[in-house]
Amino acid sequence: MGEEVKLLRVWGSPFSSRVEIALRLKGVQYEFFEEDLQNKSALLLKSNPVHKKIPVLLHNNKPIAESQVVLEYIDETWKQGFSILPENPYERAHARFWARFIDEKCLSAIWKACWGSEEHEKAVEEACELLKLLEQELKGNKFFGGEKVGLVDIVGNFIAYWLRAIQEVVGVEILTKEKLPKLYDWSDEFVNVLQESLPPRDKLVAFFRGRFESTTTTSN
Amino acid sequence: MGEEVKLLRVWGSPFSSRVEIALRLKGVQYEFFEEDLQNKSALLLKSNPVHKKIPVLLHNNKPIAESQVVLEYIDETWKQGFSILPENPYERAHARFWARFIDEKCLSAIWKACWGSEEHEKAVEEACELLKLLEQELKGNKFFGGEKVGLVDIVGNFIAYWLRAIQEVVGVEILTKEKLPKLYDWSDEFVNVLQESLPPRDKLVAFFRGRFESTTTTSN
Repeated sequence: MGEEVKLLRVWGSPFSSRVEIALRLKGVQYEFFEEDLQNKSALLLKSNPVHKKIPVLLHNNKPIAESQVVLEYIDETWKQGFSILPENPYERAHARFWARFIDEKCLSAIWKACWGSEEHEKAVEEACELLKLLEQELKGNKFFGGEKVGLVDIVGNFIAYWLRAIQEVVGVEILTKEKLPKLYDWSDEFVNVLQESLPPRDKLVAFFRGRFESTTTTSN
Repeated sequence: MGEEVKLLRVWGSPFSSRVEIALRLKGVQYEFFEEDLQNKSALLLKSNPVHKKIPVLLHNNKPIAESQVVLEYIDETWKQGFSILPENPYERAHARFWARFIDEKCLSAIWKACWGSEEHEKAVEEACELLKLLEQELKGNKFFGGEKVGLVDIVGNFIAYWLRAIQEVVGVEILTKEKLPKLYDWSDEFVNVLQESLPPRDKLVAFFRGRFESTTTTSN
């Protein structure tokens, strides 16, 4: 059907990565365009005039923005094969609830614990408390989606992959084997299964090291 | 099938109202339980242990929380008759995008413009700018859902109904015929069609007047 799938992305963004994971799990061929956030392309500004943010999926030139919205779109458009959301409405609601929990609660708490300068210990504790709630949702499963990756796993990519790289750089302990053993194992499984859809770890660490050093230098 | 549908709600909450609107549009019979937010019921704390917030829908004792998640659940569970979301995946993504825009951008901006004490004029201007973006999405239609109410209309209930009541109380001008003529007409249409699913206006005005007077008294 001469389908055209393009992704406006930034290589190190967990939000872009969510979309790339979904497209690869579905086996959808796509072309990506790397955005420079300091100098956004005319296509990005035209495709997402409200937020002017990546990722934007362009499907036959129709733009879809907001990563969770894009994930649902991908699941509803390429129905054959892999499913991102379960079939049962109650299980779908459950997955959407936890996906929202990650975006609305966990991400800002983790960011504050990693990069915030004030009340550091309290911030780390708060982030751990939220992740404990999330961990309970694994309920002995390998993934939040059960035996396979699903919506909550994909939305949780920052926690599974980015967080441990950032921890290494800034010397914070949030997701550790001791504090969150099941979530830590999940994070290993996630990376094992999705390695090829994730940005290179050394490049990510280098990026955050640059960021960290500029922050500590500035505050001297 | 002996179905049991309960709603834990607060009468004046736009988030509870979203769920009530959806259930009524679908023709689903339900029982509601009024919560006292100063003294939350054991059922609420058990049903939504993460956020401890209303609304919670209990369908055959299974709890679903977060109003937008509940709306999708209702649409997927009671499929016959009225549809909250359109069928086409691109149109669904579009509706979800704007529903998120309302929750993530508009509501806090409106709240700040109505109740915030600092930089009042700037806050009103910012809220109006956001609502102008929303207004453009009407594109000459009666509702965001086209000829009938849909997801964005339901999620926008606060803007359609609550905002004008609050404006009356606090003397702020955001949604007016002059500033946002199409959104103002939409708001009239919305109330016309959904009157019976909305809390009584005089009770709402009384509630906000009480709130407003306590604020202005405290700040003396």
